Formats: sequence, structure tokens, C-alpha cells
Amino acid sequence: MIQAKGYAAQDAETDLAAWDFERREVGPHDVQLEILYCGVCHSDLHQIKNDWFPGVFPMVPGHEIVGRVIKVGDHVKKFKKYDLAGVGCMVDSCQTCENCKQGLEQYCLEGSTQTYNNKGRDGVPTYGGYSNNIVVREEFVLHISDKLPLAATAPLLCAGITTYSPLRHWKVGKGHKLAVLGLGGLGHMGVKFGVAFGAEVTVLSTSASKEEAAKALGAHHFVVTSDPAQVDAVRGSFDFILDTVSAEHDMDMYLSLLRTSGTQICVGVPSQPYAIQPFSLLGGRKSIAGSGIGGIAETQEMLDFCAEHNIVSDIEVIDIKDITASYARMLKGDVRYRFVIDMTTL
Amino acid sequence: MIQAKGYAAQDAETDLAAWDFERREVGPHDVQLEILYCGVCHSDLHQIKNDWFPGVFPMVPGHEIVGRVIKVGDHVKKFKKYDLAGVGCMVDSCQTCENCKQGLEQYCLEGSTQTYNNKGRDGVPTYGGYSNNIVVREEFVLHISDKLPLAATAPLLCAGITTYSPLRHWKVGKGHKLAVLGLGGLGHMGVKFGVAFGAEVTVLSTSASKEEAAKALGAHHFVVTSDPAQVDAVRGSFDFILDTVSAEHDMDMYLSLLRTSGTQICVGVPSQPYAIQPFSLLGGRKSIAGSGIGGIAETQEMLDFCAEHNIVSDIEVIDIKDITASYARMLKGDVRYRFVIDMTTL
Repeated sequence: MIQAKGYAAQDAETDLAAWDFERREVGPHDVQLEILYCGVCHSDLHQIKNDWFPGVFPMVPGHEIVGRVIKVGDHVKKFKKYDLAGVGCMVDSCQTCENCKQGLEQYCLEGSTQTYNNKGRDGVPTYGGYSNNIVVREEFVLHISDKLPLAATAPLLCAGITTYSPLRHWKVGKGHKLAVLGLGGLGHMGVKFGVAFGAEVTVLSTSASKEEAAKALGAHHFVVTSDPAQVDAVRGSFDFILDTVSAEHDMDMYLSLLRTSGTQICVGVPSQPYAIQPFSLLGGRKSIAGSGIGGIAETQEMLDFCAEHNIVSDIEVIDIKDITASYARMLKGDVRYRFVIDMTTL
Repeated sequence: MIQAKGYAAQDAETDLAAWDFERREVGPHDVQLEILYCGVCHSDLHQIKNDWFPGVFPMVPGHEIVGRVIKVGDHVKKFKKYDLAGVGCMVDSCQTCENCKQGLEQYCLEGSTQTYNNKGRDGVPTYGGYSNNIVVREEFVLHISDKLPLAATAPLLCAGITTYSPLRHWKVGKGHKLAVLGLGGLGHMGVKFGVAFGAEVTVLSTSASKEEAAKALGAHHFVVTSDPAQVDAVRGSFDFILDTVSAEHDMDMYLSLLRTSGTQICVGVPSQPYAIQPFSLLGGRKSIAGSGIGGIAETQEMLDFCAEHNIVSDIEVIDIKDITASYARMLKGDVRYRFVIDMTTL
């Protein structure tokens, strides 16, 4: 076994703390990374707090992983030692179902294996990126360009693909009015991709103080959703809303901002059900859709697109010892826009 | 003014009863129909009971209207005296907004004028089809083929177009697995259209007793949704669910029956909000959409399609004096599948 050290939650009540554990040996199809940076996703906190479902503890969170290849198995073809590489939210899937075959491993019909808080197909718990190394089968490792600042690339592995994939799937681009709801880790990437794809992008936020920052990210317009006059002015105007909010929010109000046949795409995960008045949908042939991360080939496509268009996440690099304080700041929205752990501080 | 007689609710607490009222004179662009049959829609009952919003009383319900033209205005071109004609859920719209111009009058940005329980652009309340005549501007009057049994054509004006339009919009047809949820007035038309469009159609019903009837309508499969084994067997299998249910129901369970990227299209209108777990959407890039009736051109297309393919509603013709008893039977699901009032009984 390979010795690993990381930060783990021992249960849903205690803070993260240093923890030593083991990874499997590098098999013939595996790649081992030395982890250099790991992004801090809101879902890390949801999961260590059992907000969604009972977790697998001890839990080492982290699924926005970038690092350097330090060992490859005998049959590995795509990677060699010293390559930059990344790992996102998944480390395995059946590879044989119709979804896997279409590059939709995230919707694997047998269930994809999550990078942490899950058990692998071998029954062994998976441990995430708040750690110094990771062993992953080749198919789930991504190439990372050396053209981009590495730390700021880490959040692309979750926040990036989670917003890129639905915008591509629904073909959002030139001629579309796109609203991005919420300007956090996901939202700020949604703005960057929306702008890069040619859409006219409006940020919807409860907080007027974010206007300057939204414009700096490339947003064309900004609407304070607590101001009824501003809301009325954009009623029925958006082709798409990319809804990145993971707290409860008034879906009927946001649906009223869509034009006829518009779609609200939800990528945040509130812990309570959405409540939606039937007329909010029927009254304009509107849709609410959900989208979860993206497949492996699409994640690579997104990373390559980012390298070509010089897109990364806006980040604040932190020491892993500050992780609990950083969660508290994240909960207050006090981060622009993603914390990334410098793993040399482990 | 034109004298009219009909059945009206005087308020939300009393049963329908005979009522005399007036219609406007036939204007230069108007068509007057002698109403021969009027379908009984579940929404008639919702509206006279103020289930959705406070109604305009006295209220003469009815928006599945067929009859014969008895008078046309000087500028009317599409209709002449003695033509068979129909009127559906709308009698007016602005005709100038982008939705009206695209033939989506039901989503008129100024609001379309409903056939009853509404006020016209002249401020006068509209009165529906539980009456002996109606005056409607030419653009909102439909041609009815004499090839079809007239009484059974009436429900096409609401139940027909409400199911036809979304199946066309989402291009449901050959190669698709379509589930129809609920086998009432809307559902039975959804089955007929789904089959006519080439989809593989499954009826989902809480009631095992409806299997034979579903198959008689052309459904290929039948699933009793109260039987967990039958539900498990179709989990993740449908491209589309046409959800015609207007009572509360477990959306997460039905969403789990969709395959990846599937869409649940809601055309029923429960009085409570839908409750939807975010993961039910995100877990498979699924959508919930709503659709309301259809535009005028599409309604005519649907009527022509029905004439060509010999599709009508399965109905039970009633005397208008039995309307309250018929509502009670409708509430119990004791109708196959639509009551239609014979207006000569008025």
C-alpha cells in the first residue's frame, strides 16, 4: 500500500484534521499523482456535514485536484512521469453501459465512483484531494496544460466542468441572453464560459456589492434581485438561467425572468426540494433542468478550451490549516471565488 | 346585444344553474356560432371553485366548443354561414407581440383572453361554452371537419391541443419511449397522439383496472405505479413522460423513470407547488417542463391531423342538467374519458 497523509473529517460533527491513511498500489492501468493543489468546493462542506446523505467516514474531501504524475502502471499510455494532470469528481465508472459509452460517465447506469465519500468497485472507501497523493485509473485522469497557472486550474475540475457542460449541452451562445444566478465558485465560471461562448450575460445576485466584480469577470449586465424594479425590468427576458445557488431560493420568481420556452439549468444542490408552481412552467412552456459535472472527454475538452482561451478560476490560495476558517468564509460568501489549498502546506 | 342562455356559477360556493346573459353583437371581424356540443374540462371545475385564483362571476365555463356558424361579420373571410367551427381556450390576444407573431398566442406577452373567467380587451367578462351561442373574432375560430363525429371532436379544442402541442414541440415520435401519466381526458388523448406519432407508449396509472382500456386506446404497455416491482422494471427507461395529473403526486419517483436527459412534460395543473429534489434532475440531466394548450395555427393543424387520422376523444354525452353530477363522477375518475354536453338539452 501507498502511505498518504491528508485532512479528514472523522465524523459529521468534528472539524477536519490531519489524518494518515493508505492508498492502493499503482496497478497496471493506474496513474499516481503528487497533489499540488486542491480546490475547495461547497459540496465538500455539504458532504462532511451529511447535508445530502450519510457520508463514508473518515472522509478526506476534495475533487478539484491538480498535480504531477509520479508513477504510472505498465499499461498506461496517456500519461508519463512528470506530466501535469488533474482529477475531478469521479475516479471510476462501469465503462460499459450506454451512458459510459457516450462519454456520460457521470451518469453511469451502475453509478460512477466519486472521488471521495464513496466506495470503489473494490469496496474500499475513496479518499479525495485534501491529501498529498492519489491513485486513479488512467481513464479518469485529465491532462493539464502548462500554459495556465496551476493553482487556478484546480477548480476547473468541478466548478469549471459543472458550468461548461450544461452551457454546451443546451448550446448557449451567440444570440442568447444568459443569466447567471449566484456569483460564487460555480457562478463566476458560468460568467466566464457564457461570455466566451458569445452569450449576453447578466449576473443575478442578492448583493449589490458584487456588481463591479461581475463586470470585471466579463458580465454585460448586473441585476440586484432584492430590488423589485430591477427584477421587473428583466422579466421574461432570458433564454437561459444558469442557477448555481445551493441554498433555498424562490424558483417561481426566477422562472418569471425566462422568456417563452426558456430553461433554468440548476447546477447547485440545495438540501431542500425545489418548490415550483405549475403555472410558472405551463405559463410559458418553460423548463427546469439539472446537470451534474460532465463526462471525461468533455472535461478534457473544457480544459483544452480553457488553455486556448486563457480561462482559469479566480482563486485565493490557502494553507490547509486554515480550511475550517475558509469554510466559514465560504458560507458567508466571503471568497472570490474559490479557495484552493496549497498542498505543500500539508 | 345578442341574447344567450347558459349554465353559470354565481359564485364559488354554488352549483351551476341556468342563467340568461348577453353577448356582444357580431362585429365586422366576428363569427357567431350556435353551440352544439361543449366538452367538460377538469379546469372548468377548478375555476368555478376558485382553486387557482379568484374567478370572474357569474361564470359560464366551457372551452371545448363546437357548433355551426350562424352569422359572420362583413370582413370575415375564413368562415361562412353553416360551416362547422370550434372555439378553444382563447378568444383573443394582442396579435402583435413576438409570441403572437410566432403563432404562440397562448403565451401572448400581453396575456391572451381566455374563453371564460376572464375579461376581454373591451373589459367585458367572457362567457364560455356551456351556452347556446358565442361570438368570437375570426382569428380564434377553428375549422372543424365534417368527417369526424362532432360531439367527440369538442374535447380536441383543449384536451387535444394540450397534449398534441408538447408532443410536437419536443418532437416525440419514432424511437422514443413515451410514458403517459394519468389516463383521463388529457391522458387518453396523449396516448392516441403518442401512438399516432410512432412512439412506444406506456400508460402509468395508480389503478390496475385501467389496463384494458389503456391497451384499447393503443398503449403498448401499462404500469401500475402503486406496484414497486412494476415501477422498478421501468426505472430509467422513458425519454418523455407526459404528466397529465392535476392532483399532487411524487415528482421524484416519476423523474426516476426517465432515462438520462429525459423530460417530464407537465400539462396538468395541481393546486399545490411541485416539490422536486435537486438530485432528481441533476442525477441524469433531466428536465421538467410545462406546456399550455397550443397556438391557433397549431390547433388547426391538430384538428386537420385528427380528421386525416380519424382521431377523436372517447366521450360520454350528457344532458346539461347532469353537469353537477358529472363533476362528481369526474372527480372520482369515473369517466371514459370526457363528458361532452349536448347543448340541445339546454
